Amino acid sequence: MNSSKLVVQKFGGSSLATPDKVRRVAELVTGEKKAGKDVIVVVSAMGNTTDELFELARTISPSPPKRELDMLLTAGERISMALLSMAISQLGFQAISFTGSQSGIVTDTSHTSAKIMDVKAFRVRDELEKGRIVIVAGFQGVSPAKEVTTLGRGGSDTTCVALAAAFNAEECDIFTDVDGVYTANPRLVPEARKIPRISYEEMLELSFCGAEVLHWRSVDVARRFGVRVHVRSSKRKEIGTIVMGKEEIETADICGITQDTGLVELTFGDEDRSPAMAERALAALDKAEILVKLMRVLPDPQGRGQLSVMIPEEQRKQALAILATELAGLEIGIDDTLATVSIIGHGLCSKPGIARKVLASLTATGVTPLSITTSGITMTIVMKRSEALDAVKKLHSDLGLG
Amino acid sequence: MNSSKLVVQKFGGSSLATPDKVRRVAELVTGEKKAGKDVIVVVSAMGNTTDELFELARTISPSPPKRELDMLLTAGERISMALLSMAISQLGFQAISFTGSQSGIVTDTSHTSAKIMDVKAFRVRDELEKGRIVIVAGFQGVSPAKEVTTLGRGGSDTTCVALAAAFNAEECDIFTDVDGVYTANPRLVPEARKIPRISYEEMLELSFCGAEVLHWRSVDVARRFGVRVHVRSSKRKEIGTIVMGKEEIETADICGITQDTGLVELTFGDEDRSPAMAERALAALDKAEILVKLMRVLPDPQGRGQLSVMIPEEQRKQALAILATELAGLEIGIDDTLATVSIIGHGLCSKPGIARKVLASLTATGVTPLSITTSGITMTIVMKRSEALDAVKKLHSDLGLG
Repeated sequence: MNSSKLVVQKFGGSSLATPDKVRRVAELVTGEKKAGKDVIVVVSAMGNTTDELFELARTISPSPPKRELDMLLTAGERISMALLSMAISQLGFQAISFTGSQSGIVTDTSHTSAKIMDVKAFRVRDELEKGRIVIVAGFQGVSPAKEVTTLGRGGSDTTCVALAAAFNAEECDIFTDVDGVYTANPRLVPEARKIPRISYEEMLELSFCGAEVLHWRSVDVARRFGVRVHVRSSKRKEIGTIVMGKEEIETADICGITQDTGLVELTFGDEDRSPAMAERALAALDKAEILVKLMRVLPDPQGRGQLSVMIPEEQRKQALAILATELAGLEIGIDDTLATVSIIGHGLCSKPGIARKVLASLTATGVTPLSITTSGITMTIVMKRSEALDAVKKLHSDLGLG
Repeated sequence: MNSSKLVVQKFGGSSLATPDKVRRVAELVTGEKKAGKDVIVVVSAMGNTTDELFELARTISPSPPKRELDMLLTAGERISMALLSMAISQLGFQAISFTGSQSGIVTDTSHTSAKIMDVKAFRVRDELEKGRIVIVAGFQGVSPAKEVTTLGRGGSDTTCVALAAAFNAEECDIFTDVDGVYTANPRLVPEARKIPRISYEEMLELSFCGAEVLHWRSVDVARRFGVRVHVRSSKRKEIGTIVMGKEEIETADICGITQDTGLVELTFGDEDRSPAMAERALAALDKAEILVKLMRVLPDPQGRGQLSVMIPEEQRKQALAILATELAGLEIGIDDTLATVSIIGHGLCSKPGIARKVLASLTATGVTPLSITTSGITMTIVMKRSEALDAVKKLHSDLGLG
């Protein structure tokens, strides 16, 4: 490596939706290069390309083979990365684009939701040493068997953080259409404040519990490798939110509130509610890589524990299919009228008073908590989906985040 | 290899333009599989995808880097091959799609116009042995340095023939939107007849001189490796045209007439018309991989030879750029009002009477031949572009092709 400072920057689909926006990103990127830095740019597919390709696949087949789905979807970043490279050349700078495979993003073999196993970015390194701006396709990788894989939702964030870790980059910028991480979704809660600095643990919980700004998997990679991530706007120059180690910052008691309205709850039937059945059901879901976001065991009228799991709505069909295969005859109740609201902050585990405030706030709003789970720095309340927005607004105000 | 008959089939963009058409191709392909054959399918990008991606590149940069252009354009086949694979799976057959790189289509490093150097299709072979239908991205390959390349216009035809040669396939089918090779373009000359069998040499000349049905480069590969190519309609079952060795067929005196109206003529100026200049100009064009389709040396008023070359219209800008760089100050005349009309047939070199008939026909039509060149089995006449269609129609009739 030469001695320039290295910055890894990720631009999402909305920042690359049109040729004009691609040009704007080229200007941002070459601005860093002009300032004497080495630059790796990670890109998503333009605008809604990934969704459109997915829809195209669905017109051909209701459940296309995942390997072929990955082949299809990876066309998206291929287009945006080549166009960005052209736009950068047009500004008089040298650029080269690489697919996930060419960048050495080695993953496991789980098509459509692969995990990064290794980063063998020697081609990226060679090109940086030649002074070129290197553009890397986010979201995609290659398995040891040379098969094209994708990382699932938010995969480009993960590509960006993984590259920053592999290169020990000085800066890791995630450019989005909002200007940082907020105490609640500012589109829903106008009083929400931008959080200047947040710990990995808090960010991980916020992301996992519904904050869309950064994918939790990328936060997990950042935490493990100590990558300081800067979440910022592609429209404004100002500093957004820095995600970093807890020991480096003074954390607030509560850092933010999120909601997740994209979940569906599956409740397993009466027939056989032995622990063995629960274990088999969870094993089946795990095997199919269903993300169990919340698990509840509630007593039924006879006082026996009944297992429910909340999973992402988009995995519903897949989950039901695997359960039907592996546990034939199991009765499954489906409830898609629920939501979770989560409060995240280091204060939750150290200051019992906060939990009391939360309950008081919910009661005052007229919300009935269907269940409350706490773990470490997170408290998650299951409630009717229709009550979630009011609850978030009231909690945001009552907990003094406004 | 197992002992099944192997067929390699190529489907162009118009055969894959919509999800419905993709399904129709899946039916054709699985029909072959049902008949007990092994199948390799070579696909182009859907509909006008390649042109659309090219236009997108042009909105970003008037002359995008060729490496990035190849990266961009190869997204096209990626989409069609994944969708076709899904459609085949949907019909209950096993399929797998491979990029040019995964298929082992090894090319030289000439981005946007690479030549196939080798076919290392061991992954294709493995999957055929597993009983799968293998779908290969046409038009694309990979250089020894692992860079993605494209083969230029008609590249998918070449991919198909190269794979048929590598696997010593029993059948090589090129499916198009016409039902074979005709004695003239049937859209222009309604009396044109389908040619049931044609020699490699004649097909090569027809293609090189403007027939669009099969790219001349793919014919050249077929000739070198003795691949029998069946040009046929994707809409009808009937036999189209078989391209094969001359010794196997009784050839007609004249097999067909073509025109090329997509040429531009560059005439080099007065300043310095030494043979050295001509050689340098041709060397420059060769270096930039400009396809010189016709070369003429005509006397100027002083009786000195003046060099003109006819090149494809789409290479005009590139040709002028390289000439400006390599031969600064050279005056160049540009004429884009010309066309060539070519008569192709083995009779041309054995029966001098045919040339006389051609001239009589042109005179009767009122066409002034600006020059006539003959080589082997082809006679090419340069004329005003506006006269070409009448000339083709009259020649087609006068030479008894109707």
